[in-house]
Amino acid sequence: MISRLYTLLAAAIMPAAVSAQSPDSLMLRKIYSEVLTNSTCYSNLDYLSNKIGGRISGSAEAQKAVEWTFKAMKEAGADTVYLQECMVPHWVRGAKESAKIISKSGSKVVPVCALGGSIATPEAGLSAQVVEVKSLGELAGLTENALKGKIVFFNGPMDPTEISTFNAYGKAVGQRWAGAMQAAKYGAVGVVVRSMGLAQDDNPHTGSMGYDEDVPKIPACAISTNAANLLSQALKSDPALKFYFKQSCQALPDVKSYNVIGEIRGTDKKNEYIVAGGHLDSWDTGHGAHDDGAGIVQSIEILRVFKALGIQPKRTIRVVAFMNEENGGRGGDKYAELAKTNNETHIAAIESDRGGFAPRGFSFSGPKEKKDKLVSWKPLFIPYGVYDFTEEGGGSDIEPLQQAGVPVMELIPESQRYFDYHHTPADTFDKVNKRELELGAATMAAVVWLMSEYGL
Amino acid sequence: MISRLYTLLAAAIMPAAVSAQSPDSLMLRKIYSEVLTNSTCYSNLDYLSNKIGGRISGSAEAQKAVEWTFKAMKEAGADTVYLQECMVPHWVRGAKESAKIISKSGSKVVPVCALGGSIATPEAGLSAQVVEVKSLGELAGLTENALKGKIVFFNGPMDPTEISTFNAYGKAVGQRWAGAMQAAKYGAVGVVVRSMGLAQDDNPHTGSMGYDEDVPKIPACAISTNAANLLSQALKSDPALKFYFKQSCQALPDVKSYNVIGEIRGTDKKNEYIVAGGHLDSWDTGHGAHDDGAGIVQSIEILRVFKALGIQPKRTIRVVAFMNEENGGRGGDKYAELAKTNNETHIAAIESDRGGFAPRGFSFSGPKEKKDKLVSWKPLFIPYGVYDFTEEGGGSDIEPLQQAGVPVMELIPESQRYFDYHHTPADTFDKVNKRELELGAATMAAVVWLMSEYGL
Repeated sequence: MISRLYTLLAAAIMPAAVSAQSPDSLMLRKIYSEVLTNSTCYSNLDYLSNKIGGRISGSAEAQKAVEWTFKAMKEAGADTVYLQECMVPHWVRGAKESAKIISKSGSKVVPVCALGGSIATPEAGLSAQVVEVKSLGELAGLTENALKGKIVFFNGPMDPTEISTFNAYGKAVGQRWAGAMQAAKYGAVGVVVRSMGLAQDDNPHTGSMGYDEDVPKIPACAISTNAANLLSQALKSDPALKFYFKQSCQALPDVKSYNVIGEIRGTDKKNEYIVAGGHLDSWDTGHGAHDDGAGIVQSIEILRVFKALGIQPKRTIRVVAFMNEENGGRGGDKYAELAKTNNETHIAAIESDRGGFAPRGFSFSGPKEKKDKLVSWKPLFIPYGVYDFTEEGGGSDIEPLQQAGVPVMELIPESQRYFDYHHTPADTFDKVNKRELELGAATMAAVVWLMSEYGL
Repeated sequence: MISRLYTLLAAAIMPAAVSAQSPDSLMLRKIYSEVLTNSTCYSNLDYLSNKIGGRISGSAEAQKAVEWTFKAMKEAGADTVYLQECMVPHWVRGAKESAKIISKSGSKVVPVCALGGSIATPEAGLSAQVVEVKSLGELAGLTENALKGKIVFFNGPMDPTEISTFNAYGKAVGQRWAGAMQAAKYGAVGVVVRSMGLAQDDNPHTGSMGYDEDVPKIPACAISTNAANLLSQALKSDPALKFYFKQSCQALPDVKSYNVIGEIRGTDKKNEYIVAGGHLDSWDTGHGAHDDGAGIVQSIEILRVFKALGIQPKRTIRVVAFMNEENGGRGGDKYAELAKTNNETHIAAIESDRGGFAPRGFSFSGPKEKKDKLVSWKPLFIPYGVYDFTEEGGGSDIEPLQQAGVPVMELIPESQRYFDYHHTPADTFDKVNKRELELGAATMAAVVWLMSEYGL
């Protein structure tokens, strides 16, 4: 594109974008320029993804990530860095899972992975006939007669017509969370769940699932979208086919782990806290680059950019790397518990846990007058492509703060690619664009600066 | 992210987004849903990128692309498809280029490629001392004494603080276009230009360059950003080092080629035309997936979605696959010339030539009242993440129409990743996300529908 000489000349004589320059807009310009020029968040993410890798709660990698984050927050310039102890679940995947469709036309190996929290199959694997449903609602219409001794195949796809892929995820993911507990009520012996992704590919997506203590626990696995389509088609020509899967995952006793917290103390209102963070644990199948290495390095970058620009915030900035978001939320619970015990005043909390993509807005939940104040800053963000202030909610780690009455926010990046990688082996560093990651970091730093300066 | 049960349940009971439902907003919803569910643009791009590949003007691949596009427009449901003949330049790269930095510490091979339109070096290659400058302005401050017999190294980087990477490109690309003609005035014997990209990597970026008929033509190549940094560093420790490069590119006589045009005839205002298009040619080093296979398949998708939804436009939709955008613009010139000859009324023209990324807005150049009408539709686009109506200009292929007084527009997608791939071997199908491509196609179709219904 753009090869015509007159276009080039027009571009060459255009001055850099200038607009009405309030002191606040100048500060945002400084923050964005500092991050886009000198950020360490991309190289930090390289380290976290490629040198540490997947870091499920309780793993040696999670402990390494705690130690690395402690150092990284120090290097970024936090006044104080400390650990906040919490006990976390220790679920382990065991040997690589295997699965087959065994039909009258032969046996076909397909890619699966255990859902997080699932029990193992018997050592020799589990094999049974299959009942396909498209939703929990459809399951509820079936009888014990239809399901007893069967494997239930939850094959409801994410809705491609939803523009935000998070809405499509929200509508479909109940199958993953509640599929096993619901199917077991009818005597099913296992469940296989279509991966929560919009792409047609061969990556199974793990993710947390739950059990109901009043019904038997049955093993649950995710199957790739391509293989889900294959299984559905195979069932049409051979309804009596069997599905076989084998997994050796198990829950070990809880272990000690930590949130990592880095602070820049405020000047005149140092006892008012602003929390900004992401989660340090990740699923074990990938490297946790977008989910949520991105949120961690963006949050650490807030510390770096404040120090680099010599910003002395009026209120205290507390960057938190939460432990155990993926399968328990214990870090978020612990943080809120201690905030209450210590009677701390939190004026807001913001999380980045939707991937390191180009930022488009902020979600918010809290009192209307505080939302209005946030929205009043929208013109400051428009030059950076951040225009959407309509969504509700904060991140999962700060929901306990929200329940305690703290206004919560989440960075909302472009969502289209997130579920191509989420909870899969494809969630690796090479899927993250440096500038998109940096723009998200700068957007976090900018809104944290505004809140530190003006409250909310 | 989102593992807490209460989040999941909240999401599950949320209805799909509904808003005030004007007939226009319902039609846009239909267009987006149709594209996100049944689009063929992604599989079309797979074919164009992977089965045809790079398709520089005059090549056998460009001819194959013409024939394929003719068929694809028919299949998409155009009433009429026809070719528009034009003569195009036929520049060929020849053998793979090679280059070395030869300094007192040894010889180091570095990745380069000829700039499009450059002459060859002597058969044995060209070797000379190097003068590094950061801009055309810096060059203008030097004397013939400093430059005679030298290779000029244009090493001005793209400005990372520009939020739109197209602005950064516009500020830097004059070095590529005019570097050789300016340096030759001072007796330089060759130029090497830092690649137009923000990523630090090993891909040289080709792209068009020009000559001044009044000064000698000297060969010009692009060097990867990593190698540009290396060369700059090497010059600091050994200012007398030599740069060697060898390329065998040449301009052959012009050949016959074509624009490909597919129409859906309007009903009551069939003599009012709306042009929507992209360019069919691409540089030869990659597969032209983002630049501009994306624009081609998105434009073809407009035809398909109109047919699939049974939309009979009031005005005539003319989808144009322009030939020769990259190194001549002859297709765009020919289209405008024939539009004038045939005395056709064009109410607007829109191009997609900024890659297949998630759409964020439209640029526009034309009368204020027409801009106001376009902006009045902004609320219809906000639910799809299309919010930015501030930029000026249209695509390069429709600039001749603009000069003839036609209002022009361009689809503005997210820009961060574009220059990681632009004009490089990395511009391949795997860099395109299906949903992002589709959202761009739907956005094009939606604005074309609004203009066909209401004029501009």
